Amino acid sequence: MAGEGDALPAARWSGEADGLGAGLKARLRIRDAEGRTLHDAALEGDSRSHQGALAALLEWHARQGDGGRIAAVGHRIVHGGANFVAPVRIDDAVLAELAALEPLAPLHQPHNLAGVRAAMKAFDGVPQVACFDTAFHSTQPDVNRRFALPRALHDAGVRRYGFHGLSYESIVTQFAQLAPQLAQQRVIVAHLGNGASMCGMAEGRSVATTMSFSPLDGLTMGTRCGHLDAAVVLYLMRSQGMSADDVEKLLFRESGLLGLSGISSDMRELEASAVPAAAEAITHFIEQVVQHMGSLAAALRGVDAIVFTGGIGENAAALRERILLQCGWLGLRVDAQANRAGKAQLTAPGSAVSAWVLRTDEEAVIARHTARLLLSRAG
Amino acid sequence: MAGEGDALPAARWSGEADGLGAGLKARLRIRDAEGRTLHDAALEGDSRSHQGALAALLEWHARQGDGGRIAAVGHRIVHGGANFVAPVRIDDAVLAELAALEPLAPLHQPHNLAGVRAAMKAFDGVPQVACFDTAFHSTQPDVNRRFALPRALHDAGVRRYGFHGLSYESIVTQFAQLAPQLAQQRVIVAHLGNGASMCGMAEGRSVATTMSFSPLDGLTMGTRCGHLDAAVVLYLMRSQGMSADDVEKLLFRESGLLGLSGISSDMRELEASAVPAAAEAITHFIEQVVQHMGSLAAALRGVDAIVFTGGIGENAAALRERILLQCGWLGLRVDAQANRAGKAQLTAPGSAVSAWVLRTDEEAVIARHTARLLLSRAG
Repeated sequence: MAGEGDALPAARWSGEADGLGAGLKARLRIRDAEGRTLHDAALEGDSRSHQGALAALLEWHARQGDGGRIAAVGHRIVHGGANFVAPVRIDDAVLAELAALEPLAPLHQPHNLAGVRAAMKAFDGVPQVACFDTAFHSTQPDVNRRFALPRALHDAGVRRYGFHGLSYESIVTQFAQLAPQLAQQRVIVAHLGNGASMCGMAEGRSVATTMSFSPLDGLTMGTRCGHLDAAVVLYLMRSQGMSADDVEKLLFRESGLLGLSGISSDMRELEASAVPAAAEAITHFIEQVVQHMGSLAAALRGVDAIVFTGGIGENAAALRERILLQCGWLGLRVDAQANRAGKAQLTAPGSAVSAWVLRTDEEAVIARHTARLLLSRAG
Repeated sequence: MAGEGDALPAARWSGEADGLGAGLKARLRIRDAEGRTLHDAALEGDSRSHQGALAALLEWHARQGDGGRIAAVGHRIVHGGANFVAPVRIDDAVLAELAALEPLAPLHQPHNLAGVRAAMKAFDGVPQVACFDTAFHSTQPDVNRRFALPRALHDAGVRRYGFHGLSYESIVTQFAQLAPQLAQQRVIVAHLGNGASMCGMAEGRSVATTMSFSPLDGLTMGTRCGHLDAAVVLYLMRSQGMSADDVEKLLFRESGLLGLSGISSDMRELEASAVPAAAEAITHFIEQVVQHMGSLAAALRGVDAIVFTGGIGENAAALRERILLQCGWLGLRVDAQANRAGKAQLTAPGSAVSAWVLRTDEEAVIARHTARLLLSRAG
């Protein structure tokens, strides 16, 4: 990776607005760089839109009176399609191209672009930069980008894009500092969160990943089904009379851990539950990680290191241990004590394959790309 | 497996009718047990239905005048649903149950049942036995039978059935005679033909397989896409205005090797072609076998032997060699000479994982089940 050594811009504070427009309770939370809460309040009325939440955030910022000037705004954009394989400064033409990709990610892209439009309005003349969750995977060999569909469909954009690229980039950068030699070998990163995917990398570049055309494919997730026979969609529409919208809601919002457990999409709640279906849902999640680990190891023709990240990957030590024990056949010997103690390295000395846990920081990746793009334009 | 040692009924002759009702050129071919052609003629007019082809076959049989009496008829039925996990004698109630499963396999089950009805009419009072391609997989652990969908859908039949079970059973039986100890260990069988799937087994029982709800999922096939993000189906219907029937035709009939190459679904034609897309299609096929090998090895927590079968698996030596070379990371050392010479064992002495090729014989499995079921009823 070029620029791995670049100084990282320092985080001042981070804000998170959730429940926007969803009929849920909307909140704005702001934390400082060390994670201490600076602000936590409900968003009411007009503030419950992307535009409104951003306005509330800026009001708070103005009240701090610390004289900080907004030099640029970096955005996480889920889909860059076939053309956007690197961060790009957003102008009207780019925005139109990104809007044209909405059918590829109907549940994510429109929300991302609503944020961009709100920021463009709020910061007139300030550079806006788009960073794509798909871009990291553009290095994959053609065979791993392709479904076995007629070539015209691939050319028209029906291909395996892969997602979570900003998180993978964050891990690649951190792992290169922690274990420089290993980071150049065959590494599988498991980004396990409410959305979950895994990526097989060689020399820090993506070779294969579990999500494909959309963020639905691959692993069992919080509410998404992951791998599914495409013929199930045809069956549900014909035999159960479901519409495309019904099927989308079922597969993206009502499946995964939630569908299997009947209780919750939240791994912490399932781990605390005594209901048998909760334990079965966790077992399904683990089994899919283990089997996709085998598939990605095959794509890499072997594996040297495994890195866990994401909300579940970083925090669920007992679940990590179960996954690692089931990967013993790959030559991996877990150090259960190190895993429980929150150490970065999770395997015993002499383990042929090592395992690690790292905290992902997608915002730092976005900030770095944004700063770099501005500097290269200015220079 | 119970009854592995049973004497196999001897094959007298085998007949094959193809092109039935498809607007293609229909033919009836009959061969003796050694594969010599006894009859090869076009089917015309009324003979182009299942009923008509069967009548033509029986006419031929009557003309032989060898006094053979039809004691029973065994049928290959693609789908046994959740309830039929062993061969069963067909009566009207069973036939109605099997017809109710047609929505689960709309492209195969109706044709299978047309054959059953034709045979029931032609052989009044003769026992008819159904043998299921799904039944072999009923031993799988629950976690490998389940998609991450709401539990009610699993209970309603939306589950991973798996197919090619009669072929896997044929291989298990043969492998137990060829290498009895190995056959009890972790074995992956690759049934590679126009339809293709792989099965991971322990102690001769299915643990996981690549086809799931339908025969669409998993490997790249002659005209089927294999693995596909289910969201692609929603995208094609919404953005390309395709109907469920259009999508079904696309995924089952126009994809796979045919779609990738733009030339042919036939591996032999692709191997003989100089067109780059033909080579890319073969590479896609191989890559999917290699990656699913990793996934199934993970499901078994390691692998001891790999067995190839099916039209491609049995005959395409160069393709087998490429697959085996790419599986070197599993501890497999190919014996290229043995592979090309048509030996049963394809790996060098000392290879940690051994590889084999065996000729599948689904008809022998059906005949054995049918004979066994009749004897157990009579006894």
